[in-house]
Amino acid sequence: MSRYWSPIVDQLSPYVPGEQPRIDNLIKLNTNENPYGPSPKVIEAINNVVGDGLRLYPDPSSTGLRETVADYYGLTAEQVFVGNGSDEVLAHAFFAFFQQSRPLLFPDITYSFYPVYCRLYGIEYQTVPLDNTFKLDLEPYVQDNGGIVFPNPNAPTGCLLSLQRIDRLLERNRDSVVVIDEAYIDFGGESAVALVNRYPNLLVTQTLSKSRALAGLRIGLAMGSSELIEALVRVKDSFNSYPIDHIAAAAATASFNDEDYFRKVCHRIIESRELLSSKLRTLGFQVLPSAANFVFAHHPSRDASVIAAKLREQGVIVRHFRQPRIDGHLRITIGTPTQNQRLIEALESLQLSA
Amino acid sequence: MSRYWSPIVDQLSPYVPGEQPRIDNLIKLNTNENPYGPSPKVIEAINNVVGDGLRLYPDPSSTGLRETVADYYGLTAEQVFVGNGSDEVLAHAFFAFFQQSRPLLFPDITYSFYPVYCRLYGIEYQTVPLDNTFKLDLEPYVQDNGGIVFPNPNAPTGCLLSLQRIDRLLERNRDSVVVIDEAYIDFGGESAVALVNRYPNLLVTQTLSKSRALAGLRIGLAMGSSELIEALVRVKDSFNSYPIDHIAAAAATASFNDEDYFRKVCHRIIESRELLSSKLRTLGFQVLPSAANFVFAHHPSRDASVIAAKLREQGVIVRHFRQPRIDGHLRITIGTPTQNQRLIEALESLQLSA
Repeated sequence: MSRYWSPIVDQLSPYVPGEQPRIDNLIKLNTNENPYGPSPKVIEAINNVVGDGLRLYPDPSSTGLRETVADYYGLTAEQVFVGNGSDEVLAHAFFAFFQQSRPLLFPDITYSFYPVYCRLYGIEYQTVPLDNTFKLDLEPYVQDNGGIVFPNPNAPTGCLLSLQRIDRLLERNRDSVVVIDEAYIDFGGESAVALVNRYPNLLVTQTLSKSRALAGLRIGLAMGSSELIEALVRVKDSFNSYPIDHIAAAAATASFNDEDYFRKVCHRIIESRELLSSKLRTLGFQVLPSAANFVFAHHPSRDASVIAAKLREQGVIVRHFRQPRIDGHLRITIGTPTQNQRLIEALESLQLSA
Repeated sequence: MSRYWSPIVDQLSPYVPGEQPRIDNLIKLNTNENPYGPSPKVIEAINNVVGDGLRLYPDPSSTGLRETVADYYGLTAEQVFVGNGSDEVLAHAFFAFFQQSRPLLFPDITYSFYPVYCRLYGIEYQTVPLDNTFKLDLEPYVQDNGGIVFPNPNAPTGCLLSLQRIDRLLERNRDSVVVIDEAYIDFGGESAVALVNRYPNLLVTQTLSKSRALAGLRIGLAMGSSELIEALVRVKDSFNSYPIDHIAAAAATASFNDEDYFRKVCHRIIESRELLSSKLRTLGFQVLPSAANFVFAHHPSRDASVIAAKLREQGVIVRHFRQPRIDGHLRITIGTPTQNQRLIEALESLQLSA
């Protein structure tokens, strides 16, 4: 460690995102991006704000965008927070709610950024194992805790929890904040935003990077009671006054105003997911039921890392995690029908069942 | 305080940015924005990346932009860090370097975000008073410390330190990190980036919001030894993998590639600053010598907050700080010649010298 660093910097274990190679003709199914572009109305909205106005600071409170999201979900703007991607929103939420004397709880198999935030802010945590079928059982979360966080659907498994089960957890966990990370909720789940007015300790985070195809613009959301949102605003205003730029705000607003396009794209991806899942099963894969824009698949007789490497040779990138319990699995993003078909052909060429 | 908040949230005193009213015909001289737009090549670069590609994540390391900045300053990409505005860059620097057992030192009159970061991260600090003429004397900084930070030129005074004096401080302060916040350096100062290869404990931060007229896009920079930059990367990758979006990266790169436009705009603003300063002096103001895109002015016989309120009635907004030592001053951003003239006419109508 450098003598100039704050001592804590040496203890950080930064998050490692999926690689972003820019290679022509690559079938990139490793980072859960949307295979379709954003709404044409988003492009139009961006073109309308590009110009001389970029010299001015954006609205530090992103009022217009927050009002749009609030209208969309039947909330008030005071119940909505926006940030530079849902990773930033989650970082602020960990700081604002989880620096407690009791440990934070989250699944053993989940979004790998959670333990990274904990190290950054010195948050004690305890992981709760998924069951043998990679299902998230909420029963063990009903215990003394300093907070609860899980994605729904979970990542990288894609498994969905029903709103009823989340409701039951919230009924029994009133004293700490529950963050539900809904990065993938639009691909078949029911959002817990519907419960925000009933539970002052519920925070729901979302991203515009997946279902709304704006990964390149970095916009994340949180919806919760004004009491929780106020804490996020205090942290944000102690860190960076203007996290959302002019263009991102205009693009995000336009995206929420084009419901038809949004529904059509989600529907297409869901259809492709079901088709891809069944083809993968035909090739001998065990595929977890997914409510996300990816599937999590395991081949009983082949090494997952070898499959990933061989796919890569054919120009198809999928994600493999070298991590206990899931190192036999591949996380495969749903691409366009053509991309999915190329993946299947590449897998067929490996003669997996032989 | 809410029982759901982390205890520290209650102790935060968020930064309050200058207001961002969007009123037609307003002469907005309160937040040090650039009165001229960004380079036409920046607009062109943005238009070239707006489209379907927004669905993909940006390069998490912003390699292209970092290489461009490195070339510009004669550094390597490993000596350059980029973030979502220089406020985010500074926040990460405070976390990465200033969580020490000894106190951080900064001026009593300076950028008001510094104590806010300190509260956020529990950093102990000690302020060093500017002298009676609001000059920054570096001598008192040569003492046992956990870090040093100051803007050059200083804000909100606009006063510049020479590179020689900074060099002398660095020669005598080898054991802690010195952050020089050069938000306004392009309006007449000499950048300490020239010293980066000589002092491994020097970090220079800059922003594209002022001289490069991109406040609306949120891009900040830090230049320093690879040892310091590595710490910033570790913190950033423990917080948010992709802070710089596609469009901001393209715009920033194009801005550094249009040196002519950049120099022309800076030159115009410097000329206007000198003219405005002399007109303000004619109206009875004491104006500190400024090397920034604003002036800091005091009228000996009129209340500064009253002047600000009366200017506002005439559609001209300037910034007044209700803060000891400087509540008799106004910080006035340099506008276009027409805007500066309207400011002067509005001040004349107040018959200040009468």
